[in-house]
Amino acid sequence: MNAMSAGTDAGLLAPTWAGTPVAAEVTDEAWLQAMLDAEVALARAQHAVGLTPAAAVRTIAEAARAERLDLVALAHAARAAANPVVALVTVFGEAVAARDPAAAEYVHRGSTSQDILDSAAMLIGRRVLDLIAADLRRVMAALASLADAHRHTVLAGRTLARHAVPTTFGLKAAGWLELVADASVRVRAVAARLPAQLGGAGGTLAAYREYAVMDRGGLAGTDGGTDHGTDGGDPGEGGLELLKPFAEALGLAEPTLPWHTVRTPVAELGAALQLVTGALGKFALDVQTLSRTEIGELSEPAGAGRGASSAMPQKRNPALATLIVSAARQVPAHALVLAQCLLAEDERPAGAWHAEWQPLREALRLTGGATHTAVELAEGLIVHPERMRANLDLTGGAIVTERLNVALAPVLGKVRAKKLLSAASAEAADTGRPLSAVLAADPELSARFSPDRLSELLDPARYTGAAEALIDRALRRYDELGAEPRDHEKNGGTR
Amino acid sequence: MNAMSAGTDAGLLAPTWAGTPVAAEVTDEAWLQAMLDAEVALARAQHAVGLTPAAAVRTIAEAARAERLDLVALAHAARAAANPVVALVTVFGEAVAARDPAAAEYVHRGSTSQDILDSAAMLIGRRVLDLIAADLRRVMAALASLADAHRHTVLAGRTLARHAVPTTFGLKAAGWLELVADASVRVRAVAARLPAQLGGAGGTLAAYREYAVMDRGGLAGTDGGTDHGTDGGDPGEGGLELLKPFAEALGLAEPTLPWHTVRTPVAELGAALQLVTGALGKFALDVQTLSRTEIGELSEPAGAGRGASSAMPQKRNPALATLIVSAARQVPAHALVLAQCLLAEDERPAGAWHAEWQPLREALRLTGGATHTAVELAEGLIVHPERMRANLDLTGGAIVTERLNVALAPVLGKVRAKKLLSAASAEAADTGRPLSAVLAADPELSARFSPDRLSELLDPARYTGAAEALIDRALRRYDELGAEPRDHEKNGGTR
Amino acid sequence: MNAMSAGTDAGLLAPTWAGTPVAAEVTDEAWLQAMLDAEVALARAQHAVGLTPAAAVRTIAEAARAERLDLVALAHAARAAANPVVALVTVFGEAVAARDPAAAEYVHRGSTSQDILDSAAMLIGRRVLDLIAADLRRVMAALASLADAHRHTVLAGRTLARHAVPTTFGLKAAGWLELVADASVRVRAVAARLPAQLGGAGGTLAAYREYAVMDRGGLAGTDGGTDHGTDGGDPGEGGLELLKPFAEALGLAEPTLPWHTVRTPVAELGAALQLVTGALGKFALDVQTLSRTEIGELSEPAGAGRGASSAMPQKRNPALATLIVSAARQVPAHALVLAQCLLAEDERPAGAWHAEWQPLREALRLTGGATHTAVELAEGLIVHPERMRANLDLTGGAIVTERLNVALAPVLGKVRAKKLLSAASAEAADTGRPLSAVLAADPELSARFSPDRLSELLDPARYTGAAEALIDRALRRYDELGAEPRDHEKNGGTR
Amino acid sequence: MNAMSAGTDAGLLAPTWAGTPVAAEVTDEAWLQAMLDAEVALARAQHAVGLTPAAAVRTIAEAARAERLDLVALAHAARAAANPVVALVTVFGEAVAARDPAAAEYVHRGSTSQDILDSAAMLIGRRVLDLIAADLRRVMAALASLADAHRHTVLAGRTLARHAVPTTFGLKAAGWLELVADASVRVRAVAARLPAQLGGAGGTLAAYREYAVMDRGGLAGTDGGTDHGTDGGDPGEGGLELLKPFAEALGLAEPTLPWHTVRTPVAELGAALQLVTGALGKFALDVQTLSRTEIGELSEPAGAGRGASSAMPQKRNPALATLIVSAARQVPAHALVLAQCLLAEDERPAGAWHAEWQPLREALRLTGGATHTAVELAEGLIVHPERMRANLDLTGGAIVTERLNVALAPVLGKVRAKKLLSAASAEAADTGRPLSAVLAADPELSARFSPDRLSELLDPARYTGAAEALIDRALRRYDELGAEPRDHEKNGGTR
Repeated sequence: MNAMSAGTDAGLLAPTWAGTPVAAEVTDEAWLQAMLDAEVALARAQHAVGLTPAAAVRTIAEAARAERLDLVALAHAARAAANPVVALVTVFGEAVAARDPAAAEYVHRGSTSQDILDSAAMLIGRRVLDLIAADLRRVMAALASLADAHRHTVLAGRTLARHAVPTTFGLKAAGWLELVADASVRVRAVAARLPAQLGGAGGTLAAYREYAVMDRGGLAGTDGGTDHGTDGGDPGEGGLELLKPFAEALGLAEPTLPWHTVRTPVAELGAALQLVTGALGKFALDVQTLSRTEIGELSEPAGAGRGASSAMPQKRNPALATLIVSAARQVPAHALVLAQCLLAEDERPAGAWHAEWQPLREALRLTGGATHTAVELAEGLIVHPERMRANLDLTGGAIVTERLNVALAPVLGKVRAKKLLSAASAEAADTGRPLSAVLAADPELSARFSPDRLSELLDPARYTGAAEALIDRALRRYDELGAEPRDHEKNGGTR
Repeated sequence: MNAMSAGTDAGLLAPTWAGTPVAAEVTDEAWLQAMLDAEVALARAQHAVGLTPAAAVRTIAEAARAERLDLVALAHAARAAANPVVALVTVFGEAVAARDPAAAEYVHRGSTSQDILDSAAMLIGRRVLDLIAADLRRVMAALASLADAHRHTVLAGRTLARHAVPTTFGLKAAGWLELVADASVRVRAVAARLPAQLGGAGGTLAAYREYAVMDRGGLAGTDGGTDHGTDGGDPGEGGLELLKPFAEALGLAEPTLPWHTVRTPVAELGAALQLVTGALGKFALDVQTLSRTEIGELSEPAGAGRGASSAMPQKRNPALATLIVSAARQVPAHALVLAQCLLAEDERPAGAWHAEWQPLREALRLTGGATHTAVELAEGLIVHPERMRANLDLTGGAIVTERLNVALAPVLGKVRAKKLLSAASAEAADTGRPLSAVLAADPELSARFSPDRLSELLDPARYTGAAEALIDRALRRYDELGAEPRDHEKNGGTR
Repeated sequence: MNAMSAGTDAGLLAPTWAGTPVAAEVTDEAWLQAMLDAEVALARAQHAVGLTPAAAVRTIAEAARAERLDLVALAHAARAAANPVVALVTVFGEAVAARDPAAAEYVHRGSTSQDILDSAAMLIGRRVLDLIAADLRRVMAALASLADAHRHTVLAGRTLARHAVPTTFGLKAAGWLELVADASVRVRAVAARLPAQLGGAGGTLAAYREYAVMDRGGLAGTDGGTDHGTDGGDPGEGGLELLKPFAEALGLAEPTLPWHTVRTPVAELGAALQLVTGALGKFALDVQTLSRTEIGELSEPAGAGRGASSAMPQKRNPALATLIVSAARQVPAHALVLAQCLLAEDERPAGAWHAEWQPLREALRLTGGATHTAVELAEGLIVHPERMRANLDLTGGAIVTERLNVALAPVLGKVRAKKLLSAASAEAADTGRPLSAVLAADPELSARFSPDRLSELLDPARYTGAAEALIDRALRRYDELGAEPRDHEKNGGTR
Repeated sequence: MNAMSAGTDAGLLAPTWAGTPVAAEVTDEAWLQAMLDAEVALARAQHAVGLTPAAAVRTIAEAARAERLDLVALAHAARAAANPVVALVTVFGEAVAARDPAAAEYVHRGSTSQDILDSAAMLIGRRVLDLIAADLRRVMAALASLADAHRHTVLAGRTLARHAVPTTFGLKAAGWLELVADASVRVRAVAARLPAQLGGAGGTLAAYREYAVMDRGGLAGTDGGTDHGTDGGDPGEGGLELLKPFAEALGLAEPTLPWHTVRTPVAELGAALQLVTGALGKFALDVQTLSRTEIGELSEPAGAGRGASSAMPQKRNPALATLIVSAARQVPAHALVLAQCLLAEDERPAGAWHAEWQPLREALRLTGGATHTAVELAEGLIVHPERMRANLDLTGGAIVTERLNVALAPVLGKVRAKKLLSAASAEAADTGRPLSAVLAADPELSARFSPDRLSELLDPARYTGAAEALIDRALRRYDELGAEPRDHEKNGGTR
């Protein structure tokens, strides 16, 4: 084996996100840069309230370039403190000092590891959620077009893996749309609330305040006479006053309190991500099922090498759907770890916080990759209405037995109607004859229903209930979400 | 072993909820009754749109009493169809027929198992969330009172299991309050959206509509000439039109679409529940830590037999906190199963739906029990400010080293200041002498700081930063949630 | 709602186990009885080492009847101590005292809650694992018969939801057998190791020993002069000496140490159970897939009401497979909770232990129910070789493209061979013509291969590789497990 | 953000494994090399049975160097097929062809993606388990030394976060040892069984066999007249015969069957890893608790920068324990995903397999990192017996109340004894007086027990039960595991 422990994080084992836009947003390098961004935002916020001089802010901002630091050395050094910020502050301070020793005094001033790392995590979370939200809009647009275009495309509704009653492909797509819309609403709500973190060593903002008092000419540690709080002046001075400019500098929400052990933002982020992959996973699972060789009602869009097998020239695998499903099987486990980390003891926990970082990154990139993949799948999905029709006819009308039951009940009585239909269904199944033929041969039925009437009753296309109206409801809700205009030309291609 | 397979569901292995109000809401009996409630609501909705006669509705409602059915037989019969509704419809139909055969024709008319069971689940979910929301209001009121009452109670802020910097117990309580408020907001949002389920066998509402057409004199199965949809008239007739009165009859939200495989409501319910137990779990974990024998800063309220041990007369265990923590360790696993069930293939899945029921019940009652328990814990929590103070003083001032660092930096230079403090801290730790004594003996320091000034700098009570202002922010947010008025007398008792 | 919080535990929401033999083994009543069994075993063990008098043991054993205690009251009382044993000891002590006050002195003598509850859990675990092991033997016998009977039944091997290459149904069954055999081996290994628990309040066996010294005439608390340990005599006296007879009285293994916070037995039990449901779940998932309407290669055994729908007379759902899959989706989450409870702080944890009980019960009964169900499914599975053959032929030979590739490579060169086959496959897929026809029309191929040779190459039945030999390997391993003799008549029915 | 999506995988967010030996074993590069190793092993195996020429094997082996391939391009290309092997085979084939076109014919001959990737995964699993097993041996040796050295070091046994009864630190360490021994046994068993994967496209080994027949001069695709199997000769020829040499070339176990969807090896690997982190996590959690500022009974070994804080000069955090606990909170979630992937449909699943890779890697490196960290923690752990003794004395004897109860019962009667002790304990707790003083003031007691006798009864060091004998049992079991000799000098340092 290679002696160097730092490899390349290219997603060799994670094709769901390898090479997709989300990948670059969550690398070690991106995370390191986000931590530096948080350090710069802190200096900016302290400047905004009249503390850190503009020149120092400039120097700090100029030095805050991840590519100039030795990431691998930092990662290894992180073991000493169990988090990467302690070592980062040292080397970053040195980098700033090399430019201007005076500026170095203002690096990480009054701060603590968790303020920097949590803010960085939220910054990255925000960037990834923005990517996801944009991709979800495209997925919704494509699904809405499919729902609209296929409002009259009848196919077998399937329950417990068997044909049940007819439905339309438009309604199926509307169901996918509804799920994705639910996830999208949640993603936007969570994204808007992702908060900056600022609390200092114990969540009281004490050191921030202490520096502020000192910088403003107060004697550090001098108590100006108030009973409580560090000293004279507004008790929030230098501490609370930083919250707003710090959050603004990062483009994040201002928290009510430091949330070192108030981990709602992380738990809710995990829950939102699993909603996304769950929604897309259901869509992908249906695509896989309907593209089974025997069913053949859907195909994935073709692409160079797409779905190829290393062994079988004829294969075209549902590779996009597989990438999505594989993500959907993993993200809930990451969300679970994040939810469990709500149990964080004391003012900062010894393990619960540390267990969040990697699952958060994994959940973000799996979800980002799955969403990116779903755009391609939804926009390029190929629908085979003729196969849908052929499959519907496979059982010679058995798929509308429910309807026959309703029709026969008043004629034959409920009990006899059901008995007759069960017997006829069984006979059809056993002999392989179409149910329509079995029924037409029944003297009681032929006496009461004309062949035309019977054939009408057995036509699956005439038993789709409120499918069309339901599609309209789903499209209405989608429109209300203010999503992109549906483009009838762009997708929903039928072949 | 006993030959009978049906035992008593009293929570012998689940003291978190045993005997609490939530327990009765989620029993097999309650679930059976909720299914019957859904059947009655369906009849009412069909009557409301002019279909089922009033007399039949009355008969159906009168017969819909869970205690008159053989629950154990039903549970066993459920294996044949893999869900309990198929068998229930048979025996309930017979029970109605025994009163009035004509009314029996209107039982479960056009319906499907999942409409009944999902609606029942949401009904139960709603009842339990209402219980939880009410208890969370009480927990918040108690925590708000603690935050307010203890705004000046200083204690050691602890990070990574060690003393860090001072904080106040009020701020600690404010952090708990913030977490519970977050959970409460989420619970109320989810509760308001829990939808009724109505879709029929394939989610198209087809049979509901077929019956409606027939009842209204149309020839069942007659196509009135439209190209799509079953027949003449409004395509929603008899199907869509039922959604609103059905949801209203159950007091649930009206869904956009049937959600047989659009499982957002269940996944979001799971996520909300884990947020509740996570929030309460953090509170409980802190109570356990702070009531450790060596720390002794908090005690649980006393009660008959509370915290008793079977072996040790002196023991008073943090039993309430333990009940809460044990729930917080289980609920995320149930939420995970619910999230994974988003991957539900086809129009109804063969296993994913079936895997939801038991985890949902368990999550509901664990959360309901934990919330009930948290009321008792929060309202009765006993605070020991003198132990907090004594623990603060344990390290002779080491807990304000961060502050000293800020104060000494401009005097000695940043580097020398940190070096001096690290050396002094190490000496204090090694020799067991208080840090204050070590510092006072340092010639450099004694030359520059008067004993009074040094003692002031070393006073933990003077280094609580913005704690008080942060408490006010948390209380303000709590007030804005429209929660109960805080009762300063009711709790936050200090001893 | 009902005011009484204790319902009936009949499995209304868990048809996987409702009414199956495992159900009775894990009820509250069964658990209560197992705790009493542990108390009796303790008295017996203390008698065996010469402490508790035989008369007291008899009285204790006679009183130890769960049905005579008020289970509901006990469950509610369990909240005070966060576990049910404290209250149980009180009422059981009273019950014994009512028969003989002297005997009551020997109840729970020197013991602690966890000794009783953990021993009870292992007792129940053992009973359930025995049921599971027996059912797994039947499942294996049925699968072995299927593997043997269908060694020449060719069907489409499917990968990524598409036809891949041919395989045999016998090999498919052999794969299921192998999985079940793996699970079975693990179940038996874990079952044999389930340990009794005996440690006393802090895991030192101190009180057991103290009583022993006193009973033997030593002055309780008298130190006979040794430096360490309580007093004179063998340091294990009255403590360690109990381990063996206690474990024997329960039919459990003797542990090396008290395992109050050495939770390997529970974590490994969870891992074994998830292996069982995972193995059976794979089998069930395949049954569901192959019984899809369009595929139709397998059917579940028929039974009264089996697979019925509340709406559709024609439906026969794969209900048994659905019950199994629903369990397989839940058990890993329970196993996860159990694994996490390895993190149990101190000599006994405040929550981790308490979080084990319910997940353990759920995992046991879900697995027991799934195994019971799998017996029925495996023994009654109906195989449709003619549908397998028909599906194989659906693609006109595309399923053996891999083989053609091997055959053509030396003739045409690797690159041209693959190109020709990919083009022909695409043409077949696009035009709907069988691949055989497309290939036969190719001048290059027809020049080199006779029609007979081509047809031979395109015959799926002639491309099943080492399937038969692999079946034999699996059967050999099964035979080595010492399982039941395969009964060729009993199952593997072909229709 | 950076346009390049491939970052550095240095563990910036995972200090548990960053820079530790396991890190290099599981990088993308290592995984790529392992896939190449599997390709080489295949060529070797085919040569061993007389098929692939030695020269081709040499060329293939020479070309199989991961560092010569463009890993990032491969990772991105993996999306097309949803796994990295398809693209790898192309570029590796080209690399071999560049050296010798004839050799290229023998690359991946008859193989399929899953054979290569699964074998690579097991290879990596094996390497990591070997690292883990070696580190666990060191952990056990250190814990055994602690158990032995501290057999008489008395400290407070704690249950539910409160003092319970005395125990010894040696017994505590013996409990940790027992857990680690359990995990170690499991790791070794699983490691010995990790199988090579060889099945070909559908698990029948058909293409391997087809090539073998052709290479041996048979006409590819010629049926020599047998009814079943591809052609004449031993049905295993060219297929089955490869299993053994292929497994041997990789140093892995030979499987009974191809295990493409018989995922026991992966599920059991996950279960073993969670047992390791669970065992180490319990140890680490106890270290954290006992190194709390107020408790101070243990300290982590010092090291440069170890446990430093970015804000507080005085802090020495339990960083090693935190790294371990953070891993223990994550691994069970990965193990859960692996267990769920047992549900793999068909001959190869569309998502379940793909979901295994990343969780497996994460679980391996978290466990490897945690084990490496645990060596440092266990070998360097600093024990403070004087703080243990001081804490024991904190409650003035309340910790031996259980013992007093045993002693007083025969004197005062069971009921009065318990009442007296409960009242005295409550008085001591309320007044802050030591229990011994309260008891000495009791006239009834002072009349019956001499001050010396009372003081003896109240001495915690005389109530440690069978602790020492239990330590010996644990050490005996450890010795039987054939682990390293304990080095009494090397660790267990007391300070």
